[in-house]
Amino acid sequence: MRPNTLRSKIAAGEPVLNAWCAMASSHAAEAIAHQGVDSVTIDLQHGAIDFAAAFQMLQGISTSPAVPLARVPWNEPAIMTKLLDAGAYGIICPMIETEAEARAFVAACRYPPMGSRSYGPNRVSFYAGTDYAGQANREILLLAQVETRRAVENVNAILSVPGLDGVYIGPGDLSLSFGVAPSMDPTDAAVVQAMADVRERARSSGLIAAVHTDGAATARRRFAEGFQFCSLPTDVRLLIDAVKAAVREAKPGV
Amino acid sequence: MRPNTLRSKIAAGEPVLNAWCAMASSHAAEAIAHQGVDSVTIDLQHGAIDFAAAFQMLQGISTSPAVPLARVPWNEPAIMTKLLDAGAYGIICPMIETEAEARAFVAACRYPPMGSRSYGPNRVSFYAGTDYAGQANREILLLAQVETRRAVENVNAILSVPGLDGVYIGPGDLSLSFGVAPSMDPTDAAVVQAMADVRERARSSGLIAAVHTDGAATARRRFAEGFQFCSLPTDVRLLIDAVKAAVREAKPGV
Amino acid sequence: MRPNTLRSKIAAGEPVLNAWCAMASSHAAEAIAHQGVDSVTIDLQHGAIDFAAAFQMLQGISTSPAVPLARVPWNEPAIMTKLLDAGAYGIICPMIETEAEARAFVAACRYPPMGSRSYGPNRVSFYAGTDYAGQANREILLLAQVETRRAVENVNAILSVPGLDGVYIGPGDLSLSFGVAPSMDPTDAAVVQAMADVRERARSSGLIAAVHTDGAATARRRFAEGFQFCSLPTDVRLLIDAVKAAVREAKPGV
Amino acid sequence: MRPNTLRSKIAAGEPVLNAWCAMASSHAAEAIAHQGVDSVTIDLQHGAIDFAAAFQMLQGISTSPAVPLARVPWNEPAIMTKLLDAGAYGIICPMIETEAEARAFVAACRYPPMGSRSYGPNRVSFYAGTDYAGQANREILLLAQVETRRAVENVNAILSVPGLDGVYIGPGDLSLSFGVAPSMDPTDAAVVQAMADVRERARSSGLIAAVHTDGAATARRRFAEGFQFCSLPTDVRLLIDAVKAAVREAKPGV
Amino acid sequence: MRPNTLRSKIAAGEPVLNAWCAMASSHAAEAIAHQGVDSVTIDLQHGAIDFAAAFQMLQGISTSPAVPLARVPWNEPAIMTKLLDAGAYGIICPMIETEAEARAFVAACRYPPMGSRSYGPNRVSFYAGTDYAGQANREILLLAQVETRRAVENVNAILSVPGLDGVYIGPGDLSLSFGVAPSMDPTDAAVVQAMADVRERARSSGLIAAVHTDGAATARRRFAEGFQFCSLPTDVRLLIDAVKAAVREAKPGV
Amino acid sequence: MRPNTLRSKIAAGEPVLNAWCAMASSHAAEAIAHQGVDSVTIDLQHGAIDFAAAFQMLQGISTSPAVPLARVPWNEPAIMTKLLDAGAYGIICPMIETEAEARAFVAACRYPPMGSRSYGPNRVSFYAGTDYAGQANREILLLAQVETRRAVENVNAILSVPGLDGVYIGPGDLSLSFGVAPSMDPTDAAVVQAMADVRERARSSGLIAAVHTDGAATARRRFAEGFQFCSLPTDVRLLIDAVKAAVREAKPGV
Repeated sequence: MRPNTLRSKIAAGEPVLNAWCAMASSHAAEAIAHQGVDSVTIDLQHGAIDFAAAFQMLQGISTSPAVPLARVPWNEPAIMTKLLDAGAYGIICPMIETEAEARAFVAACRYPPMGSRSYGPNRVSFYAGTDYAGQANREILLLAQVETRRAVENVNAILSVPGLDGVYIGPGDLSLSFGVAPSMDPTDAAVVQAMADVRERARSSGLIAAVHTDGAATARRRFAEGFQFCSLPTDVRLLIDAVKAAVREAKPGV
Repeated sequence: MRPNTLRSKIAAGEPVLNAWCAMASSHAAEAIAHQGVDSVTIDLQHGAIDFAAAFQMLQGISTSPAVPLARVPWNEPAIMTKLLDAGAYGIICPMIETEAEARAFVAACRYPPMGSRSYGPNRVSFYAGTDYAGQANREILLLAQVETRRAVENVNAILSVPGLDGVYIGPGDLSLSFGVAPSMDPTDAAVVQAMADVRERARSSGLIAAVHTDGAATARRRFAEGFQFCSLPTDVRLLIDAVKAAVREAKPGV
Repeated sequence: MRPNTLRSKIAAGEPVLNAWCAMASSHAAEAIAHQGVDSVTIDLQHGAIDFAAAFQMLQGISTSPAVPLARVPWNEPAIMTKLLDAGAYGIICPMIETEAEARAFVAACRYPPMGSRSYGPNRVSFYAGTDYAGQANREILLLAQVETRRAVENVNAILSVPGLDGVYIGPGDLSLSFGVAPSMDPTDAAVVQAMADVRERARSSGLIAAVHTDGAATARRRFAEGFQFCSLPTDVRLLIDAVKAAVREAKPGV
Repeated sequence: MRPNTLRSKIAAGEPVLNAWCAMASSHAAEAIAHQGVDSVTIDLQHGAIDFAAAFQMLQGISTSPAVPLARVPWNEPAIMTKLLDAGAYGIICPMIETEAEARAFVAACRYPPMGSRSYGPNRVSFYAGTDYAGQANREILLLAQVETRRAVENVNAILSVPGLDGVYIGPGDLSLSFGVAPSMDPTDAAVVQAMADVRERARSSGLIAAVHTDGAATARRRFAEGFQFCSLPTDVRLLIDAVKAAVREAKPGV
Repeated sequence: MRPNTLRSKIAAGEPVLNAWCAMASSHAAEAIAHQGVDSVTIDLQHGAIDFAAAFQMLQGISTSPAVPLARVPWNEPAIMTKLLDAGAYGIICPMIETEAEARAFVAACRYPPMGSRSYGPNRVSFYAGTDYAGQANREILLLAQVETRRAVENVNAILSVPGLDGVYIGPGDLSLSFGVAPSMDPTDAAVVQAMADVRERARSSGLIAAVHTDGAATARRRFAEGFQFCSLPTDVRLLIDAVKAAVREAKPGV
Repeated sequence: MRPNTLRSKIAAGEPVLNAWCAMASSHAAEAIAHQGVDSVTIDLQHGAIDFAAAFQMLQGISTSPAVPLARVPWNEPAIMTKLLDAGAYGIICPMIETEAEARAFVAACRYPPMGSRSYGPNRVSFYAGTDYAGQANREILLLAQVETRRAVENVNAILSVPGLDGVYIGPGDLSLSFGVAPSMDPTDAAVVQAMADVRERARSSGLIAAVHTDGAATARRRFAEGFQFCSLPTDVRLLIDAVKAAVREAKPGV
């Protein structure tokens, strides 16, 4: 089976920079995947992407060395099965607040006896190799999103679930949950503290501390803080910012 | 009929900044259209876009004040008809080298007696209004691409064709045609001179001088030179540049 | 944030006429939206429409003054999140039978602290404005479908849920639930009585009484009865009826 | 090979009522095809439809007894080949003005030795049967659009081309060509006379006289005049008219 | 209502051979449906297929005599409703392990009073006829997948659920559940015994015993064992095997 | 630039086995590409494939070592440009009958000064590398289809066109052109002789002799005859044959 390079990079202490796709475009996904990022996440929750688009995006990403990941819309096995069968090498699951939810997430993504994932690899066998079924449990990366106050309180229990590889902090929802305006780089002291706590709990458990960011500068800072996996803003956001900047520069007086 | 604001802007001496879509994504097109550009061109020649995607992109752009334009893949009436019926408010036609080609282009896009466009407005009547047919010849913008040495030699004849609104320089193909490497900001003296000549001929004919650029800085310079309409790089290029820059910034040591 | 005009219309006592899309066609949705209806609902339950089509339909509807709504296939947060992020200004949720179900529905569609909607507005910010997140809870319209005997029995409890804007009667399922053949204009006394009861409970609670109809004549009658929001038959039904009528008229002897 | 029932109906003197699809929706096409029309035409010229959508629409229409036809965007062999291979049982070609153009049209659609259609039946063999290649020249219906003054002048020459089955009058373009506003039911004397002349020439040549209409009433009148094949307005138009009428009826005071 | 021919075939003791579609291709589905299989199942669980593709595939299959079935991704009513409304004549539901799960499955697919399926037939009325609603409960085929050790233990309870038509064994997951490597033709004694037990329980209950296979030879053997319904490998698998065999034969030395 | 491995294989005397895609499925294309074929051709002429599908198929094929090729629907530059920009590494052009047609074909696919291909590589730069523009003329493979009697007569002139890499015989159309029934393995003496002549002319000109076949056995024979490049039957045909065979084997008595 093709190895999941994110695992070896993290084991080697290399920072993992993850791109984030919110547009249903395999063209954009392939373009992004070839620019030096370590992985590309297809966002089926807040991204305007469903399975059919994700399938094509997985094909586009698979032409590059970047590892294809997916964020699912909800902690439901149906879509996880489909994305894994289609070639996702990791799943980010939103709104995991309890150990039970984390267990359900892991069970849906691991073959028996580790979990209850149904057998039927499809496109993934072209990407991973025909020995996929026997080794998938070892390579697929599972990250639970910790993004509410309740999840922070339960983070130890969440991190204790066998088969989970790490936690992924969503600073926007976490901010809302703490009663402050959503931000991808929170400054509220309680939120900042919660993020640090979760990061340290994950690291001390030997698991991955991952986080969403509002751009490369924040990502760089997060890596320095000890996060091992940082996501860039969405492709839509990068595009909007680029066009806005171009308008300002090309027509300064307007 | 909804007026084509590009006409009034150019009449008023305002620079027109045009965004350029090469991805088949109505999401990207709509996002771009809302960032302050004057128009958005859907590129069906070098863009990975065909009619079905263009139709959806026209819907996305139509939610914004930006004017929807299309670059056709070739000087053929079938695709021009379809794009105009679907709501394009202007057509950029590649590789116009002779007066006859310019006449054919205009004929395909103007209703009789000015041309021979077939009658059958479709989606465009939602965008333009139900009085479209009677006024379309006055509002639709037609730009002929001048992008070969031969076209430069024939530029006066091309500019003389009634119903044509201007010329659009493609610096890449023009460079190739002059035997130098393709560039969106050519430095070869002969190419630079040809671009200046075409610009001046268009302006002195009372027509529009338009040009493709490699970014906002060049566009700003082109406006200063007298070009009235400048295109930004493609959405794919903006995305690639943004991701590349983010990788460099977030992982400087890698 | 762009205001939800349905709220002001209902506050002013104006009848809201809602079109109903069951075909996965952004062309049809845009065409319908421009004909004077107050809103257009994209039906993801019985309509042959999934998220990808709904996204494009939202773009098409957004070119018009009609308010874009969606009926979700089931009371599940994943699809509600995606549709709201994509620009739906209201959600109709089928088969709400209990207060708990109504609470879950509202929670999925309202940001904290009112609910638990996850933060990540996407396309909606082009339509609504960049101040969407802070004001969405105030503008988004939530209608719970009351369409079973059990729901009718629980209607007071359902109407008591904070954040719910009204109830939407589905006469077809309601008829089945009462043991009679499905009809969009029921004549069974018990069903008729149930519909009247639900309508009056909603009105006396200060909430919206909405209903599906089998056509304009019934809608007109429903408005007179006190319903504030009436849906027309699906686009497919309108098309079928139009073609059938044309066949009868054009070929009378056949 | 499955017989083309339009041929036998016309031979028997039965009027052929043809529906017209301008939306890229296989759902709409299938719905329409089941309402009693004799054929359904997929319009790739003014309809917002390209080959991929037409393929699916052909599948939808093939579930009904209605005969699937296509109007091509232009007199070009590439798209005709693809549509015939995909299961179109007839082609309507726009803007045929000369005998040479009619010959080119026929050549593209008939196998050698009658024409030069390239061999490669694809989906059509499921619909027509595996003996398609040997019998297609006999069953496929070819109608040349006569819709300009020049075409009217050349109608005898056009009708003389072997392998052509008839002419299809486009009243909108014909009106424009005569210098009057486009109408699907022209009242200009010269246009009316031209339509009658073309109809009679076709009938006296033993070929089919077909015409576009603005609705069932006009179609009925056209049948009485001697036209054998009449098209209804587009699906978009039927839908618009139905919604408009419903708005007027449901909200009379608005 | 068009009868479900699978019912009469099984009643007559005829073996039902079912094709299996894992690619989102209505072209493939239609091609397969015309080759003499009794039914074609669209797999939305492990197949790379979602609702939009399934809709088009249902259109393609409906041009043939083969009965259109769907395997849903999970025991959830939303997708079952949509597929039935779109024309599926039967549903195969994965991972049914208990009587309660079987009851929920049946309830989602049967109209009241037998179940709680929501009323709103859509495309299915073109295929089935306009009397669909009243007769659907009698014709639609429901098969529960028995594919875990727990399901085998509960098979009597599952088979007792009114409205269920049979059980469908998934040998791959069943193998995994018994702790052996997944196989579509298991040789492990315990798995073989479980399959025989389930088959006999179904037969003795008067219900259908169905099973997935790894090819025609195994299917033939299964029919001989008493299975009444056997599925072929996926379209992707058939294609892969055909290309592999061609490479070996055409380039033997390579 | 990524080298075109077909060139080195042919230079080394290795047979090139080419798969043929006629379904608009990137899933099928990717599956096929991973089974050991040397190249995969996307057929936009008789295949039910247009540009949008081809783009996705190119992504799927690009995950494998197989070289992506495309057969265009007609000798027109617009579609060739788009396919090359999207990553096709070779073009097969149908119905080339004269030297002039061959020159036009080559001109459309080669950058100046060799031809007049317009500059604007898009997706291809991810696959080929960013040095594509300067080296594309050397790597892209161009094959002209010789498939009529007239083309056979002109084969020397066609082979003399600089920039053309070889000829591709279409036995079906060639048969029709000689007045015999279409066959992918002709037995008519004149056709057989014509095929041998074309093959020998190509080989003695140092160019590639390519041919379509009806299966691996014929391909093997063709390689032995001296053809260097043989295509397998379409994916649809392979699928049909596999299902037919399975039906015969699984239900022998039926």
